[in-house]
Amino acid sequence: MVELEKKIVSEGEVLPGNVLKVGSFLNQMIDVDFVMKMGKEIADLFSADGVTKILTVESSGIAVAFSAGASMHVPVVFAKKNKTSNINSSCYSSVVHSFTHGNDSVIIVSKDYLSSDDRVLLVDDFLANGNALRGLLDICGQAGAYAVGAACAIEKGFQKGGDSLRAEGFRVESLAIIESMDDGRIVFRR
Amino acid sequence: MVELEKKIVSEGEVLPGNVLKVGSFLNQMIDVDFVMKMGKEIADLFSADGVTKILTVESSGIAVAFSAGASMHVPVVFAKKNKTSNINSSCYSSVVHSFTHGNDSVIIVSKDYLSSDDRVLLVDDFLANGNALRGLLDICGQAGAYAVGAACAIEKGFQKGGDSLRAEGFRVESLAIIESMDDGRIVFRR
Repeated sequence: MVELEKKIVSEGEVLPGNVLKVGSFLNQMIDVDFVMKMGKEIADLFSADGVTKILTVESSGIAVAFSAGASMHVPVVFAKKNKTSNINSSCYSSVVHSFTHGNDSVIIVSKDYLSSDDRVLLVDDFLANGNALRGLLDICGQAGAYAVGAACAIEKGFQKGGDSLRAEGFRVESLAIIESMDDGRIVFRR
Repeated sequence: MVELEKKIVSEGEVLPGNVLKVGSFLNQMIDVDFVMKMGKEIADLFSADGVTKILTVESSGIAVAFSAGASMHVPVVFAKKNKTSNINSSCYSSVVHSFTHGNDSVIIVSKDYLSSDDRVLLVDDFLANGNALRGLLDICGQAGAYAVGAACAIEKGFQKGGDSLRAEGFRVESLAIIESMDDGRIVFRR
């Protein structure tokens, strides 16, 4: 999505440790009209897949997932990050390691909101090592739901999470894939 | 909003301790088409107020705020809940007590995303004791931004946070106000 690549270049900030800050339109301030366009793009990519639900993780995944849900007219379920390891039997759960924060968290989804009748599209704002997507896939597996694929706004291609999922035959679509961002210079995958 | 009241009655669940669970359409699964209608309603209520930004708190406020932003075509800023008390000088911050979780958290907003040029609409999913709104108002004050009012999806009228803000002259609009929910029976304010 050329418009997203332009926005990453003009508004993004590369911080030490391969962190890309896009707080001005995605991660703290949300450019709603622009994110709605991303949602439309995601809806177009998965229009033939009979998606019944979108699954994401709080917090920064919610806006992108919501915009895709608005275009696809399907509900969005967001996994909550649990502070305690005290998981109720009424929830599916999975352990996810965060690259940005360098810690593990447990994500949970109530069993009420995901079932074997669902065809699920995973949506997130960032895809780096793929840990969040693998946690969501794990939860889909526990629910017996079919995951049709994943859509991410920005993929850090050099961190290989997306490519490793693709190599396993799982469909991953990213609206912008960053091949490298050494010395603050952002190069996109063609 | 009659449709919201009907949804609260048909899908909501009253839990011990005056907790209303609306996870099926607002707090864990999001009925996107319905939440978009709530956003349109909020946009109509504040259409004359020259709103330049919507301010909310992660995570469950994001969907309602995003839907209002989609109708008003203004950006949404979400305050992050900080786990540490280690606040950077590049952020506004305020301490908020959570009624639901019984603890304090620090909410933060980067100084980059709120300024004295802004006319801010506060948006949240729930209004109970008003602590989250007061935290967001505190942050607007630090930024020198003008808060035109607050819009909430569901207000627990019996917890008085909304009424106490109204008594101070601050405009608070809630799409549904619950007057009581004793013994699981939900009564709305007329």
